[in-house]
Amino acid sequence: MRAVDLIAAKREGRELTAEEISWLVSGFTSGDIPDYQVSAWLMAVVLRGMTATETAGLTRAMVASGCHLDLSSVGPFVGDKHSTGGVGDKTTLVVGPLVAAAGVPVGKMSGRGLGFTGGTIDKLESINGFRTQLSPEDFIQAIKRVGLVVASQTPDLAPADGRLYALRDVTATVESIPLIASSIMSKKVAAGANGVVLDVKVGHGAFMKTMDDARRLAEAMRDIGQSVGLQVRAILSGMDEPLGWAVGNALEVEEAVLTLKGDGPPDLVEVAFTLGANLLDMAGNVPSVEEGMVVMRETLESGKGLEKFRQFVENQGGDPAFIDDLSLLPHAPVQRTLTSGKAGYLAAVDAEVIGRASVEIGAGRVVKGAAIDHAVGFVLRKKVGDRVEVGDLLVTLHASTQEGADNVASSLEGAFQLSEAPVELSAAVLEVVV
Amino acid sequence: MRAVDLIAAKREGRELTAEEISWLVSGFTSGDIPDYQVSAWLMAVVLRGMTATETAGLTRAMVASGCHLDLSSVGPFVGDKHSTGGVGDKTTLVVGPLVAAAGVPVGKMSGRGLGFTGGTIDKLESINGFRTQLSPEDFIQAIKRVGLVVASQTPDLAPADGRLYALRDVTATVESIPLIASSIMSKKVAAGANGVVLDVKVGHGAFMKTMDDARRLAEAMRDIGQSVGLQVRAILSGMDEPLGWAVGNALEVEEAVLTLKGDGPPDLVEVAFTLGANLLDMAGNVPSVEEGMVVMRETLESGKGLEKFRQFVENQGGDPAFIDDLSLLPHAPVQRTLTSGKAGYLAAVDAEVIGRASVEIGAGRVVKGAAIDHAVGFVLRKKVGDRVEVGDLLVTLHASTQEGADNVASSLEGAFQLSEAPVELSAAVLEVVV
Repeated sequence: MRAVDLIAAKREGRELTAEEISWLVSGFTSGDIPDYQVSAWLMAVVLRGMTATETAGLTRAMVASGCHLDLSSVGPFVGDKHSTGGVGDKTTLVVGPLVAAAGVPVGKMSGRGLGFTGGTIDKLESINGFRTQLSPEDFIQAIKRVGLVVASQTPDLAPADGRLYALRDVTATVESIPLIASSIMSKKVAAGANGVVLDVKVGHGAFMKTMDDARRLAEAMRDIGQSVGLQVRAILSGMDEPLGWAVGNALEVEEAVLTLKGDGPPDLVEVAFTLGANLLDMAGNVPSVEEGMVVMRETLESGKGLEKFRQFVENQGGDPAFIDDLSLLPHAPVQRTLTSGKAGYLAAVDAEVIGRASVEIGAGRVVKGAAIDHAVGFVLRKKVGDRVEVGDLLVTLHASTQEGADNVASSLEGAFQLSEAPVELSAAVLEVVV
Repeated sequence: MRAVDLIAAKREGRELTAEEISWLVSGFTSGDIPDYQVSAWLMAVVLRGMTATETAGLTRAMVASGCHLDLSSVGPFVGDKHSTGGVGDKTTLVVGPLVAAAGVPVGKMSGRGLGFTGGTIDKLESINGFRTQLSPEDFIQAIKRVGLVVASQTPDLAPADGRLYALRDVTATVESIPLIASSIMSKKVAAGANGVVLDVKVGHGAFMKTMDDARRLAEAMRDIGQSVGLQVRAILSGMDEPLGWAVGNALEVEEAVLTLKGDGPPDLVEVAFTLGANLLDMAGNVPSVEEGMVVMRETLESGKGLEKFRQFVENQGGDPAFIDDLSLLPHAPVQRTLTSGKAGYLAAVDAEVIGRASVEIGAGRVVKGAAIDHAVGFVLRKKVGDRVEVGDLLVTLHASTQEGADNVASSLEGAFQLSEAPVELSAAVLEVVV
């Protein structure tokens, strides 16, 4: 086999076999196939696409490059959840405790945030003492003990994906549905769950800007799941405006706690319930997704979800005191409010603008490994569709300095668009892809 | 400027500026831009194409990476000639002497053969003592003294092209009209001629398999010429069957001499006259191409072309004795004849099959720098359109060993296809692109 022939085949739009793709990936990982051949192949994939068979083959090859977590000792079903990344997306912190409290164990490996979409690991690290680095044994023990674990992705999970992503990042070959799908799914497969719910975000503040692209990505991931024997359900959820009210690490943890106390924003609750109901249904814990929605609501209202969240935090070394006294979470020294100079109906709160501002204020990072400030961020006081009067509070900024608040205030203001006519609301969950 | 942004722009099919392309090429040459970014960009170019402006920009950037030969001391016009490569293509050895004898100086830098298309340098090196490595000063002196020089391309001529081609070769990014056009033209521009005739071969034994592709390549090279102020004329000539009778280095030199003596194959004469007449016309030496054809014929028939060839050989250190006694050229020890088992009209002599067989017998090389046997090759005894009777001689094999002849005999036989009906002949020159 010669790499140049496989590149030429893909350049011509031909389908490679699983063996050919596996040979490419393992040659790349071992260093036998040089970067410059792989990047040419990646560009051919971006422009020519890959079939479902090729995409599944690439996923399998990347899984085979590292460890595969064996969760069978936990029980017949362990669930997992993944989001393609949005602004204000603290869904895991709500779905995980509710599903675990309803009796279905959840084990999730997660990444850190990069760019304007946050990462669950960063949010959890705003909790005093919380440990996100767990050994595989501790990961399994945590699920057995509490029914819920969220840990940093270990580097030996699909390492080929990490190497391939680093090359894609510098060769303009990130934007490819099959490459994105196999990258996500390789880590999900290696992490060992039996069923996974995927939250594909669509809109200004998401990587997928259109329903069509989002649907294609969801279907590609579902097809990979079918091919490797992993149950997959995907929802498409809106990301034109941020999810919920809070954007920023500790602020989002606070919002998750409020939600588990029954005081959450409706869009976050809708997304969390839909994802959770699908996990319960996949696990066979409920007879239908509709029944799952009922169980999710009951689990929330009974306080069992909040109780599970407390166990989860304690089990990973976190101090749960903040759950009863939210002032114990990190708080930024400077708070600034933005009010509206006009009256009308809120037509848009641009999630991308808010996301970029959150990076600027220090809540996110542009470069891998950079430090972030857990306390800073924004809390929206109005959401799309709300009536706004002159002087109404639009958003509260939490900044580390006055200067930091000044810097983002004007760009943040530009995220809000008013309309004279009332605005029709769309559902937070736009579609379910089964 | 960031390489990843330029790759992304080309991936999206956007046009890069000359400055951006120049920055890419010089960064690649200096090592500041890594191979893996350039190969991704090359694949995007292969699949998205380049505009005429981009192609000219790339050509200029490659010329700027090295020396530019200044031939102005020779006179107002120096001509050059280039072929995209075919089987049995000894045209330079006929065109060069005829045009120089007619009063238009010709200075040509040439490459060695790779794959099944031969290189003029290899052919010339079958002449005892012939020197192909000339300094720029010797190159210019040779044109001044004889009016004709053919030398190995120096490595400081468009060195970026050499580096880029090495990367294209291993990343399946050779097949791109704009990349091929700028690669050829960068060397032509740097070599300093005022006008160049291009022989774009079309057919089984050529890199361009279709008239459409050949025309696009010719037009791309013409457009580059216009953009950089180099006169360019291109012809498309057939390469379904080999050009002339002889395939192999010394055998082709022999055929060139026979042609200059007035005993050449009609297709070779037609191609050589057309190219030469266009050079004479570009130089302003004749009032029209038609007049140029007449001058070419007169120069051949008067023996002045042969005399110029003798001066050319002597001037570059070669022993011209072989011109009067062809047995002084290298001869292979084994000669084998293939005869026809059937009667009919010769419908095809597959140039690609003949070309591959010539590599197998030792007349060509697969890997750069490999040694070749100047004596071996084939001499066709029938050409497409000829009537063939049972027992008629089709081709003579010249091999270094009996085993070598055995090895290629059967594949060579497969190159000949007979038809019961008479075969209509097409002209050797298919089109002239001005």
